[in-house]
Amino acid sequence: MKTKFSVLLCLAALLSSCAGTQEQPQAESNDSQAVIENIMTRTSVRRFTSQPIAADTLETIVKAGMAAPTAMNIQPWSFVVVTERAVLDSLESVHPYSNLATATAAIIVCGDMQKYNDDTLRQYWVQDCSAATENILLAAHGLGLGAVWCGVYPSAERVSGVRHVLELPGNIVPLNLIAMGYPDGEFAPKDKWNPEVIHYQKW
Amino acid sequence: MKTKFSVLLCLAALLSSCAGTQEQPQAESNDSQAVIENIMTRTSVRRFTSQPIAADTLETIVKAGMAAPTAMNIQPWSFVVVTERAVLDSLESVHPYSNLATATAAIIVCGDMQKYNDDTLRQYWVQDCSAATENILLAAHGLGLGAVWCGVYPSAERVSGVRHVLELPGNIVPLNLIAMGYPDGEFAPKDKWNPEVIHYQKW
Repeated sequence: MKTKFSVLLCLAALLSSCAGTQEQPQAESNDSQAVIENIMTRTSVRRFTSQPIAADTLETIVKAGMAAPTAMNIQPWSFVVVTERAVLDSLESVHPYSNLATATAAIIVCGDMQKYNDDTLRQYWVQDCSAATENILLAAHGLGLGAVWCGVYPSAERVSGVRHVLELPGNIVPLNLIAMGYPDGEFAPKDKWNPEVIHYQKW
Repeated sequence: MKTKFSVLLCLAALLSSCAGTQEQPQAESNDSQAVIENIMTRTSVRRFTSQPIAADTLETIVKAGMAAPTAMNIQPWSFVVVTERAVLDSLESVHPYSNLATATAAIIVCGDMQKYNDDTLRQYWVQDCSAATENILLAAHGLGLGAVWCGVYPSAERVSGVRHVLELPGNIVPLNLIAMGYPDGEFAPKDKWNPEVIHYQKW
């Protein structure tokens, strides 16, 4: 049945190609669907298989983080990518909810306070680094990985613990720790749709 | 040339279909590419055509916002969707960089302080609402729209101005105002890739 349908689809495409039509109008629509689907199906994954994440996959994910918008284009971030078991274990020991037991990687998203010479602008670092974090979570999910955002800042204890383990300089503030790996099992997204929190025109 | 290539591709697909292969292994990979491409090509768009945004498109975008992760799953957000020109003009008058001159819509992402009964947890509202904002920007871009994140909180003046225009209750804090519309022209993404801000294992 599937084969027959594929043949029909393919013949239709052939005819369309031979008729000289240019782009398939569905192309953008399929991409739109993939983008929305990826956002809607991302969920927190806390259990991972032992399959390691390739170095270039991790780089693509951090690159996605750096594509986030920032106030005045300051890009106030730094990223620490951890894959060594010993460092993951040390991080686990200073964060009560790090979800690192089976994670094969962690990305720590940090704000660099030295990027600012303006106290007003500095206040936006949490927003900017949170946008970068969401990009990382979505890129990871899009690449078949699972991840979970574990808050660090503003907990003074967690900031100090993570800073100690990663030997971060004083100007670097860890915002969070993203545990990551290939999902061990299926993780269903939560349905968080709530029309009551949408208002139109005014409150 | 394009037609010849399409015909070849199509014949290859036909052969593959007739040989009884099941799913095309490229499918997930194409979706992954679409997701990463969408993140990497999103950029701030500040000039829009007069084409209005359909109501269901705006709803899909806000729904994408609500799919963001939040600390302890509190979902501390509210969204005000504005499409009336008079309200957009009023918002413009209280925000010096609102980019609303040609926008056909604005989404104001707000934090609801009443969702918390814990002062520690309340501190995460900016992170949670920023993640929702990034989802909204990516969904808009994925659907062919342009948008720009205009900061409101923590500027007391902008918070008070936006609160006044939208008649927000005291527990609702506007984090930002997202100007939105169909892009008027091409907007090239900035290349923000900077390997110097990535560290491996430790700082």
